[in-house]
Amino acid sequence: MSDLYVTGLEANAANYAPLTPLTFLDWSADVYPDRPAVIHGSRRFTWAQTRERCRRLASALSARGVGRGDTVSVIAANTPEMAEAHFGIPMTGAVLNTVNTRLDAATIAFILDHAQARVLITDREFSPAVAAALRQCQASPLVIDIDDPEYRGPGDRLGEVDYEDLLAGAPAEYERIEPTDEWQAISLNYTSGTTGNPKGVVYHHRGAHLNAVGNIITWGMPRHSVYLWTLPMFHCNGWCFPWTIAACAGTNVCLRKVDAAEIFRLMRTEGVTHYCGAPVVHSLLIDAPPQWREGVGRVSAMVAAAAPPAAMIEGMERLGFDLTHVYGLTETYGPAAVCAKHEEWDDLDVPGRAERNSRQGVRYPLQDGMTVFDQKTGLPVPADGQTIGEIVFRGNITMKGYLKNPAATQEAFDGGWFHSGDLGVIEPDGYVKIKDRAKDVIISGGENISSLEVEDVLYRHPAVAAAGVVAQPDPRWGETPLAFVELKPGAQASEAELIEHCRAGLAHFKAPKKVVFGPLPKTSTGKIQKHILRDQAKSASAIG
Amino acid sequence: MSDLYVTGLEANAANYAPLTPLTFLDWSADVYPDRPAVIHGSRRFTWAQTRERCRRLASALSARGVGRGDTVSVIAANTPEMAEAHFGIPMTGAVLNTVNTRLDAATIAFILDHAQARVLITDREFSPAVAAALRQCQASPLVIDIDDPEYRGPGDRLGEVDYEDLLAGAPAEYERIEPTDEWQAISLNYTSGTTGNPKGVVYHHRGAHLNAVGNIITWGMPRHSVYLWTLPMFHCNGWCFPWTIAACAGTNVCLRKVDAAEIFRLMRTEGVTHYCGAPVVHSLLIDAPPQWREGVGRVSAMVAAAAPPAAMIEGMERLGFDLTHVYGLTETYGPAAVCAKHEEWDDLDVPGRAERNSRQGVRYPLQDGMTVFDQKTGLPVPADGQTIGEIVFRGNITMKGYLKNPAATQEAFDGGWFHSGDLGVIEPDGYVKIKDRAKDVIISGGENISSLEVEDVLYRHPAVAAAGVVAQPDPRWGETPLAFVELKPGAQASEAELIEHCRAGLAHFKAPKKVVFGPLPKTSTGKIQKHILRDQAKSASAIG
Repeated sequence: MSDLYVTGLEANAANYAPLTPLTFLDWSADVYPDRPAVIHGSRRFTWAQTRERCRRLASALSARGVGRGDTVSVIAANTPEMAEAHFGIPMTGAVLNTVNTRLDAATIAFILDHAQARVLITDREFSPAVAAALRQCQASPLVIDIDDPEYRGPGDRLGEVDYEDLLAGAPAEYERIEPTDEWQAISLNYTSGTTGNPKGVVYHHRGAHLNAVGNIITWGMPRHSVYLWTLPMFHCNGWCFPWTIAACAGTNVCLRKVDAAEIFRLMRTEGVTHYCGAPVVHSLLIDAPPQWREGVGRVSAMVAAAAPPAAMIEGMERLGFDLTHVYGLTETYGPAAVCAKHEEWDDLDVPGRAERNSRQGVRYPLQDGMTVFDQKTGLPVPADGQTIGEIVFRGNITMKGYLKNPAATQEAFDGGWFHSGDLGVIEPDGYVKIKDRAKDVIISGGENISSLEVEDVLYRHPAVAAAGVVAQPDPRWGETPLAFVELKPGAQASEAELIEHCRAGLAHFKAPKKVVFGPLPKTSTGKIQKHILRDQAKSASAIG
Repeated sequence: MSDLYVTGLEANAANYAPLTPLTFLDWSADVYPDRPAVIHGSRRFTWAQTRERCRRLASALSARGVGRGDTVSVIAANTPEMAEAHFGIPMTGAVLNTVNTRLDAATIAFILDHAQARVLITDREFSPAVAAALRQCQASPLVIDIDDPEYRGPGDRLGEVDYEDLLAGAPAEYERIEPTDEWQAISLNYTSGTTGNPKGVVYHHRGAHLNAVGNIITWGMPRHSVYLWTLPMFHCNGWCFPWTIAACAGTNVCLRKVDAAEIFRLMRTEGVTHYCGAPVVHSLLIDAPPQWREGVGRVSAMVAAAAPPAAMIEGMERLGFDLTHVYGLTETYGPAAVCAKHEEWDDLDVPGRAERNSRQGVRYPLQDGMTVFDQKTGLPVPADGQTIGEIVFRGNITMKGYLKNPAATQEAFDGGWFHSGDLGVIEPDGYVKIKDRAKDVIISGGENISSLEVEDVLYRHPAVAAAGVVAQPDPRWGETPLAFVELKPGAQASEAELIEHCRAGLAHFKAPKKVVFGPLPKTSTGKIQKHILRDQAKSASAIG
């Protein structure tokens, strides 16, 4: 290249700034200081107030020595504190680690240790598991309690300081620490981990900025969108929507718990325009008494699922909601693919529309690539809707890598693409469709359950000789774990006993909902043939 | 910083791609191959066809040795070829240099030489000046002719090859050259340069990507927006809208010439949703016979002007159009500030709304900073609406610099901010309002007079169509305001009457001492050429 366009045209403070979603908070607070940013029950914060609270949080953390490269873990419901954490923590240069609130103590302890958490912000509701985790872990984070006035259930304060007191005692002035470069980590999200321990997925400021903006472009979100938090913010940073809502000067409507009556009430009173969720959330709304939804207008919804059932797509149409199907993984900041709609699909009948809309679709406009690789040749499969391969992504909406796990990182990025582990086809119109999940994962209520993890617990029961856990289709949860168990000769165990055994050793939602007894199909080398179990799970006979 | 979040988390081909707006063409062509991308008279191209044409252009240029760091100049109207140039040229790694079609031969020759143009793509309509420029310049670019079937006026072919023949003879397969980094130059836009030679403003792939997306967020543009090309694409790359329209899988409706009847016809027949332009474009539509606009729905319009007159804002409301006021310079990729609307302004009366909406406003959500610096202290002025300083910008939507002009680049970026040369204030709500170009301020008896403020009052007189106020040397006061006024067709107003009108609305020393009647000189984009008025003011003959 000639240097015509190089010399004297270098980056400087005037023409280069690292991409970060933190600037969106400043934009909304500068331009729309008095508009509602966060609504939670009787608590309502404007964008100016939200920025001030984020600055106080950052001041308080900085004063306690938190800075660049430190981890601050958060175990919280969808409350204002959780939204603020998405800005106040990275403003100090630190990394936000949101933790799944349904995890068991051992897994939480593992995460606090692995992430080297310096601070833990934790909501009272989750104190039983968190208290046990704090006893088990090596880390000794500063513990800050969220005591949400909207939460009136049981639970203890565990920490040195209350979140509101922390804010009240911190200066409102704070100059945020600019990322040294846009590749700097902003957050850390643990996968459920199909084998062994969960993996820590690291996001950077650049990707968080781009996916926040990508949500707006992909969904066509107007300024001042009103977003209802049916999706857990702990899940892939709520698909980056805390940052998206700041970028469009919108409003976050908080929600601690998915409840159809409350959802419809908030839609009506707060003028909700957008929400996201697993199929179970949408099904709840569809099945709710029609009178609950009186006065609710057209709302845009996003669903992520292997294949949203036709009944759900039809049900959403009956509600008058506009449903968009997205797809992604923790490693792609949540959704990085969308089943982008075509006007001509409107002319199809309901099953036809459902079939079109149920596909995983195409890359987000700001993701660089998504295709399906033939696992033998390593080349893209033909767009024939038949040839199965692995779905792969590449581009800026892909994680930095797995924390302290270079081997897993290298494997995931093999050949310059991120390997999703999901198997799919490319249809003739270029849209990707999942054919088979990464074999072992069960997706229940939007949460990943590792079948291996459940089997591991079953194997610990003295009566169990062999166990295979697979997904059973479930109208409410999408999927639930179904266990096939072969008992040791002469041993005895009831279904209830084994389920209870699993609940004792796992987060409750991971325990099998049903147990089928009998000899398991095995290969000649003794491996359990899970594809046969999966087929059985789909047939009524298997599930009695 | 600890290396916890650094080691083993490096960028690689799977998780990093340079930002470039070229990916948007692929997205629209992959996802919506059959939707209309470019419409021009009887020519209609889908996104698949547009990508193929861009690839053919890139193939043809590559085959002729054009590559990274080479300049390809284009002198064209708003036609499909011009839209294609925004992709096909940078796909080869080369830099797109669009040239103002109304420039004289000497200036075109200067640009071709200064830009070291290797190729010139030129529309037949502009052949007289271009032919003369080619004779004058040192450069000897390969010349490619655009012979647009929609253009039936005079003009010659000047080159070796016709654009359509070039495309027909080139392979449709082309793998675009990825930018080596996102800082790589994508385009070169010459300022009009009121003094001396024009300066070459260099844009990069990163900024073009971000501003293309910024347009969508700022304007809330939905997918499949239909954009009418009333703004010249040669002007700051059409404010980056050729890339924006690809990012939202929209449609470019081409237009060679601003003509009210044709504009309304296209709005009706093509379902136009968005257009941009200088005030003159909007005024044309407002003043058009009402029957022309029958069947035209609500359209979103953007206007860039120092201060859009209240009459125009009111007129746009009467049309039922939604007007957004933006501000920027060639150096900021076109608009990098927007007068972001507030719902409560709807409750104001028309002058109140006009006053709010006429301000330059706030930075684009993707621009990092915009403020007003006190020229003495170098610090931001207070938000008092009174203290005048220079408007400055910083962030990613700021040029790389001026081509081959490190001194001007350094001066423009002095202190880590881009200096606009515009003088303004910050109002109490944080919105910036231009008071004047630095060189347009009139200093009379030691007092600063904003020429814009005087023009604003003149525009409120019912007989005034256009007004330009400049300094006239005065032996006693140093300078006094001199007004050049163009009356509306058939309207009457005397000099004394206009001076009295100004004295009624302004401090007396700010009222013009003299008024000169006649048509005002305007740029191709409709801006009044105040430097010509200033020159006239200095010569006795001009002022009688």
